[in-house]
Amino acid sequence: MSTQAAAALVDWGTSNLRVWLVDAAAGVLGERQSPEGMGTLTPDRFAGVLETHLAALGGAPDLPVVVAGMAGARAGWIEAPYAETPTCLTDLHIQAVSAPGIDRDVRILPGVCQRGAGAEDVMRGEETQLLGAVASGLSDALFCLPGTHSKWVSLQEGRISRFTTAMTGELFQLISRQSILHLSIGEGRASAGHPAFGQAVEEALDPDFSLTTRLFSIRARGLLAGADEASAASRLSGLLLGAEIAAMRPRLGEGQCVQLIGSGALTELYAAALTLAGVETVSLDGGELVRRGLFSAARVLFPHRFAEILP
Amino acid sequence: MSTQAAAALVDWGTSNLRVWLVDAAAGVLGERQSPEGMGTLTPDRFAGVLETHLAALGGAPDLPVVVAGMAGARAGWIEAPYAETPTCLTDLHIQAVSAPGIDRDVRILPGVCQRGAGAEDVMRGEETQLLGAVASGLSDALFCLPGTHSKWVSLQEGRISRFTTAMTGELFQLISRQSILHLSIGEGRASAGHPAFGQAVEEALDPDFSLTTRLFSIRARGLLAGADEASAASRLSGLLLGAEIAAMRPRLGEGQCVQLIGSGALTELYAAALTLAGVETVSLDGGELVRRGLFSAARVLFPHRFAEILP
Repeated sequence: MSTQAAAALVDWGTSNLRVWLVDAAAGVLGERQSPEGMGTLTPDRFAGVLETHLAALGGAPDLPVVVAGMAGARAGWIEAPYAETPTCLTDLHIQAVSAPGIDRDVRILPGVCQRGAGAEDVMRGEETQLLGAVASGLSDALFCLPGTHSKWVSLQEGRISRFTTAMTGELFQLISRQSILHLSIGEGRASAGHPAFGQAVEEALDPDFSLTTRLFSIRARGLLAGADEASAASRLSGLLLGAEIAAMRPRLGEGQCVQLIGSGALTELYAAALTLAGVETVSLDGGELVRRGLFSAARVLFPHRFAEILP
Repeated sequence: MSTQAAAALVDWGTSNLRVWLVDAAAGVLGERQSPEGMGTLTPDRFAGVLETHLAALGGAPDLPVVVAGMAGARAGWIEAPYAETPTCLTDLHIQAVSAPGIDRDVRILPGVCQRGAGAEDVMRGEETQLLGAVASGLSDALFCLPGTHSKWVSLQEGRISRFTTAMTGELFQLISRQSILHLSIGEGRASAGHPAFGQAVEEALDPDFSLTTRLFSIRARGLLAGADEASAASRLSGLLLGAEIAAMRPRLGEGQCVQLIGSGALTELYAAALTLAGVETVSLDGGELVRRGLFSAARVLFPHRFAEILP
């Protein structure tokens, strides 16, 4: 019986869609990935796109679905209002919202918000990865999720106590491609192994460092010292990541380890910068975590689908 | 005799061209402004464009010309290599370079550079405004020149001892128009009078403030509290200007007054933010200063043109 699908799990972000069919024991029966993110579709297509992927995976008409990500944003399929910090991750499903316009039980998980003057923040999708971390036994930890908008999240006893978004990834793209610094950076790529990266991280960790007044040194160095494009790109990356880590220092206690969720070049840069800052890191697979988080929610949202594995 | 032109003074930047005809007593005989900045012209047109404006002003074929700005950049008319800090402003003319391809005595003033790891910086054009300040008796002062790339310059006994470029203006344009924050800022305009501006400046002056981790609060505030576009734009401006002023605090001694060179909306925002930071400001006209600086250089570059006013 364990090869029968218990639920479909969907991670639906702005740029990508990922669907898993799982059995009641969390075994993966099938998986689809697609660039049909929420941001690429008009709302009238959400139901059809989802049904197409479920059909391709052989999902039955009564198969229930749990969805995380931008599907629950105001401009998504239907708004799933934010859960507020402190947020108990295993209670996220309580605020799930049923998707309209589809002849199937589809529940969309909420995002998480933080209020308080100057600390206002929101997330959609990352909370489900963190639920997956909790389901894996990581209930007390500091997480860093590198991305266009990186998140730093403190978990205490399975609750999000506090989180912070850093626009580092987006700033790197804008500044390297469109500011005057693109004259120095060109097609250069940032590399954690480049000496300019490490030097810039160190500079940015200095208490007197200021990002806005140091960025232009990249252009000046190009003009005065003929620094090449890879050096300029690595310096920009190092200054931005160093500034982000410096801002998180108050949350990095003695011997604190950071759980780094992600993969690829950006996550490597974060790992290198954190190491330079004397911070130990552990790498976690974000896709694996979101699937575990969705599975954890599905089990409590659709208990009848999981009852069969009981003896 | 004082109504006879002694020299032409030219401020030639990336986006604009400004030409004055002056007599030997610094009286302005005529003036032209044009959007024919260096960045809008191919090099083969520099001489022709200058001659056209001189002709329109009735400048004689033997009228000498002194030029400041991007004309002396590597990609300009001809490179006038940077003078290095500490830079005696009244000696700038020593490094002036003669423009090629024109049948007239045209001298291009150098920019200024600063070397030293992490502090590398360059300016072209601002140094001539500062020479104008020195010619006006301001030889020891801290100057702020708001712009796309704002400059903070320390003058000591008529020398540029140190300067810093802040990319604040360019960051505001990029972030407000092209980052995710444009969803909250839209067509909103920053206003020094908006409460969100002052609040953001205060936040950014806090020693624990970090720009990269606070920017996203503008988006979150829009989503959570329905902040309007003018509020979002004013908050972004306040955070950026506050961060810039915070970085300059070590140079702002007790009772230090800042000479603010510029005009218009951006300069008003700087004046308001500096006032919030408890710093006194004096406003100076940048166009007037560059003309005085150019005149000061012309008098030493072309002494025969100014001899006639001696008794």
